[in-house]
Amino acid sequence: MPFLSNAPKITYKKPIFCVILGNTQISTIPGISGAGSTPEKTLLTPNLDAELVTTGRITSFPLKPNTPTGCPTPASITRAMIELTGVPPLFINAGLKYQLTVPYLDALGQIGEDPRKSDAVPLAKNLFCRGQEIGKLLSWSSDLLVLGECVPGGTTTALCVLRALGYPATVSSSFVQNPVSLKEAFCRQALTDITADSITDPFEIVKRVGDPMIPVAAGIACTYTGTLVLAGGTQMLAVCSVIKAINGPIPSVATTVYVRDDRTANVQVLAAMMGISMYYVDPGFGKLGHDGLARYCHGEVKEGTGAGGAMFMACMMGFTPEQIQKKIIETVLAYS
Amino acid sequence: MPFLSNAPKITYKKPIFCVILGNTQISTIPGISGAGSTPEKTLLTPNLDAELVTTGRITSFPLKPNTPTGCPTPASITRAMIELTGVPPLFINAGLKYQLTVPYLDALGQIGEDPRKSDAVPLAKNLFCRGQEIGKLLSWSSDLLVLGECVPGGTTTALCVLRALGYPATVSSSFVQNPVSLKEAFCRQALTDITADSITDPFEIVKRVGDPMIPVAAGIACTYTGTLVLAGGTQMLAVCSVIKAINGPIPSVATTVYVRDDRTANVQVLAAMMGISMYYVDPGFGKLGHDGLARYCHGEVKEGTGAGGAMFMACMMGFTPEQIQKKIIETVLAYS
Repeated sequence: MPFLSNAPKITYKKPIFCVILGNTQISTIPGISGAGSTPEKTLLTPNLDAELVTTGRITSFPLKPNTPTGCPTPASITRAMIELTGVPPLFINAGLKYQLTVPYLDALGQIGEDPRKSDAVPLAKNLFCRGQEIGKLLSWSSDLLVLGECVPGGTTTALCVLRALGYPATVSSSFVQNPVSLKEAFCRQALTDITADSITDPFEIVKRVGDPMIPVAAGIACTYTGTLVLAGGTQMLAVCSVIKAINGPIPSVATTVYVRDDRTANVQVLAAMMGISMYYVDPGFGKLGHDGLARYCHGEVKEGTGAGGAMFMACMMGFTPEQIQKKIIETVLAYS
Repeated sequence: MPFLSNAPKITYKKPIFCVILGNTQISTIPGISGAGSTPEKTLLTPNLDAELVTTGRITSFPLKPNTPTGCPTPASITRAMIELTGVPPLFINAGLKYQLTVPYLDALGQIGEDPRKSDAVPLAKNLFCRGQEIGKLLSWSSDLLVLGECVPGGTTTALCVLRALGYPATVSSSFVQNPVSLKEAFCRQALTDITADSITDPFEIVKRVGDPMIPVAAGIACTYTGTLVLAGGTQMLAVCSVIKAINGPIPSVATTVYVRDDRTANVQVLAAMMGISMYYVDPGFGKLGHDGLARYCHGEVKEGTGAGGAMFMACMMGFTPEQIQKKIIETVLAYS
């Protein structure tokens, strides 16, 4: 299996790596998200990830960057790639419950609400416009943008948005056992009004059932003038579905083979339907002699905080698979 | 009089234009700051400036970008240069009372307090560190950084910091009649403890009597790898005094001739003491046939929100004085 599924035809002079952070109240529903030791604590995960990726340490809480089951978090993989490449990460706050501890670009959003109770992202259109402003800024200073996300509970909002836009989507999960029936039941309920009212407007759909990351990412995609590579799995396909619905330019998507090979998700089907160039990174975590990383191969964690895209970027910048793997091992061992 | 006092020996490939925004409670003291129609409203000026410079309009309040006395605000000059050069502005929030309405980079600070009552910037050292992080980010994507500021009341904090660091400073003002005796009385009172305790540590001085912009700017200066040009008058000299005290690299400073020619301030003396390369822009506002701009020549407004540096940047980028003046006139007429 090659490290990268296909050789990208991308030329660039200046890459930049950004991660959009967001919360949705959905992650506090027990069983929905694996991104935190308790449902309530999933809300803090974007903040801890930003701190780790930016500074190399988590100091604001007495925590190690490992998942509740003991796997290295995807953010620690992203951090390894930041150290390897020297590309400084830029975090974009699309709407978080808690204050960040490192400098960030603020898109002026708020935490997404539970769509069964109220509109999820009342100011979705405003967030799209701010994404457009941010896309212009990033265009000025780079010609390759690798754009990740960290939104606990975000595969469920992705499912809602993709289904509402007519895709026969099934989405991935950071759990080994994807809580599919829970997500399906949630989605059915969340989409009741959209189905009843035959709503097809993409902004209205994001407003009702999305999360704050989606409109910011879509806005950036619509104004960024360089090559945009979205770094993530099914959540980034939801972003693409919105971009496609507004006739924006469809970006490429880079993610791990662990997301592609998730049998509970149909990443390749969706990507083909939307005409997306996909790049799948296979970092060979099964053969690195690290139990926590090896469990990525068996469906734990899989991806997150732009980890797949960060490895893709390192590859693009000329680092070898061996250099990438060595740096990841060194980094996660230092945290264990 | 040439448009630019001396030809800069700066080579660059990618310029970037940033403005650090901050508040200090000092601006609400009646008579201290001219940057707002009432003392309380001075706190909102950075927000309105950021909105105008980013979007070309003020929409969050029913206001025109003119000073209480009817001069075009310096932000409208900065906006004109943004339109002319096509460089997208990036605002950095060092500590504001009110939420911004456009995307910005957050340095996670708070509004500065009145130093007569408590420490002005309790987390000055943290803000310096965040400035360092931001400097690394900006280094990645540019090799010329023109860095302005907007801090109503900031000439008074600048006076306190400069004096505390041993400089025989007198500072400028946006008023025609600089409220010198008010500032002097304030400064004497604010520096009582610093003088009594013989405090010379620059971070301790900023903590006690500075404003949130100063440590962020100093932090950026200490990590930025390209050419840094601070865009402003006496406030930026206060930043330089802190940089010098910590043995950081002294940046150049660009400002207007209206600040240089302010007889109540000793810009040139201070710059010579610190060994700063100064660039003075003379936009010839007296000959453009616009009364509000002409009053800049008689000591109103003078500078602000990076206006001098923005004109300097346009000049560096090859725009002629005629193009710069034409764009400024067009822009301010559109707002009148």
